[in-house]
Amino acid sequence: MAVYTQVSDEALAAFLAEYDLGTPLSFKGIAEGVENSNYYLETSTGRYILTLFEKRVNAADLPYFIGLKQHLAAKGYPCPEPIMGRDGQALRTLEGRPAVIISFLEGLSPRKPNVAQCRELGAGMARMHVALADFAMTRENSLGPASWPRLWKGHEADADALQAGLAEFIAGDLAAIASAKPHSLILPRGTIHADLFPDNAFFLGDRFTGAIDFYFACTDALSYDLAVCLNAWAFEDGGRDSVDYNFSKGAALIAGYESVRPLEPAERAALPLLCRAAAIRFFLTRLIDWSSTPAGALVRPKNPLEYAHRLAFHRKVQTAEGYGA
Amino acid sequence: MAVYTQVSDEALAAFLAEYDLGTPLSFKGIAEGVENSNYYLETSTGRYILTLFEKRVNAADLPYFIGLKQHLAAKGYPCPEPIMGRDGQALRTLEGRPAVIISFLEGLSPRKPNVAQCRELGAGMARMHVALADFAMTRENSLGPASWPRLWKGHEADADALQAGLAEFIAGDLAAIASAKPHSLILPRGTIHADLFPDNAFFLGDRFTGAIDFYFACTDALSYDLAVCLNAWAFEDGGRDSVDYNFSKGAALIAGYESVRPLEPAERAALPLLCRAAAIRFFLTRLIDWSSTPAGALVRPKNPLEYAHRLAFHRKVQTAEGYGA
Repeated sequence: MAVYTQVSDEALAAFLAEYDLGTPLSFKGIAEGVENSNYYLETSTGRYILTLFEKRVNAADLPYFIGLKQHLAAKGYPCPEPIMGRDGQALRTLEGRPAVIISFLEGLSPRKPNVAQCRELGAGMARMHVALADFAMTRENSLGPASWPRLWKGHEADADALQAGLAEFIAGDLAAIASAKPHSLILPRGTIHADLFPDNAFFLGDRFTGAIDFYFACTDALSYDLAVCLNAWAFEDGGRDSVDYNFSKGAALIAGYESVRPLEPAERAALPLLCRAAAIRFFLTRLIDWSSTPAGALVRPKNPLEYAHRLAFHRKVQTAEGYGA
Repeated sequence: MAVYTQVSDEALAAFLAEYDLGTPLSFKGIAEGVENSNYYLETSTGRYILTLFEKRVNAADLPYFIGLKQHLAAKGYPCPEPIMGRDGQALRTLEGRPAVIISFLEGLSPRKPNVAQCRELGAGMARMHVALADFAMTRENSLGPASWPRLWKGHEADADALQAGLAEFIAGDLAAIASAKPHSLILPRGTIHADLFPDNAFFLGDRFTGAIDFYFACTDALSYDLAVCLNAWAFEDGGRDSVDYNFSKGAALIAGYESVRPLEPAERAALPLLCRAAAIRFFLTRLIDWSSTPAGALVRPKNPLEYAHRLAFHRKVQTAEGYGA
């Protein structure tokens, strides 16, 4: 639900005058993305997405995100390609915000991915990791373990309000991950998407047609990206208090990934802890959004409990086999 | 800001199977419209809009709205055309809601219309009135004067909270319009859009390319539609407490209208009261939305004061010349 910045007629016309994209034929706000404002833009030369970066995105990171997509697109990987203005620049300013035009990507985001889509997604993510192996730019994971104590501080009561005793469990997860940290240093690292939820993946039928929304991408353990996806794709949220790991989906996702890039033994060994770490990251940011939103708001943020339930599952898993690897 | 109903993969596939529209290539929620959920839908045969009707729309009215657009489209008037399923029906059910697929209309909604666009809009609306002159279906204006006492009841304090003394002014407006009601019976009637705000009109440059969102259309005085547009197009909202009538825009809008359908003397005479009536209608519905939204909500409704300021202007206008007619 996101169009935070309105674009005036004059500002849009002046912005498009910097490009060779022809005349605008349609311009509609898209109710997708929670970090930025996105518009469907159609011109006499084709269809595009215009993104305005809102406050939560650090402007200093934008050249990294744009360079990453340019790198992928140059390798033929299906993702939105930043469109250059006449000056050769993709990043400029619109309505006081950093803004880019990117190419339009066909495909539909699955609301409830099936097993075949999970397998395709795994393979598609592995191809992304391989295509980015020679991407030279780096970016620290700003939502990695080092950030969690700061995110968690002051929210213990919010967690207990969601579920009695939850704060103590979370503290235990944080301690377990902190003590395991030295082991993670041997994991193969590279450029990861870090937010490849079904919202950010497109399919035509069961065929993966591309990934979007690289605004959490960073340099981190490749297998952490797989762990994010296991959390995002292989669990089924039931009612308020239930969430189930779908073993077939998880196994297919891992098998798809390994069909392109087989996991190393250290990555397999680390998988349960990586899944727990990924769940902590999304639990914490959801908890903050949840507790900072007034009770009567029209738009409710996503429920952090979905990730508390995932954490409860991950705590019991000892080996990669527990996920179907 | 509107996608109230999420559409599952299976529901979308089953829905599209009822049409000859080919396979879906893109499906994105659009952040437009406040009454319904709208999706951009691209298939192998073209681009469409999929609309799900939410609770505020009376399902019994839908055949009227669909028939109206079919009538206009058959006459070549630029508006979204309802797409028939294989069974010859345009209206069906998706995710438990009434839903239609309509054709995609090119054009951009002006954020701040210029004088040339106001003239074109006036002419475009008059062409709509003419094209609908032989439309046989009728629908009462559910937000006409008869509905206002019910809308107003219990909101006097909300009005005074916005601006001290406002409730007394509104009561005066309601009384003035009620006592003038018999005179309005001689005004030419027909099918009107009743909500042709800039959001609902498309342009390419200064050329009017069509109207959308006919979900307030009804049978009423044609000149009331012009009065709605004068309120919506010819005022400029300044800061919190200022709103100015732009005489050039208003005059252009009326002149554009009259270039297609000249106003009758009774319509000219009634224009100030019709403008006041139109302002009351939008003031009241905005007041209700405003006072029913919690203070901390992420999405704020439109400020009713913009229409209180218009009312203050209309109260002083005695003749159509005051609007540039």
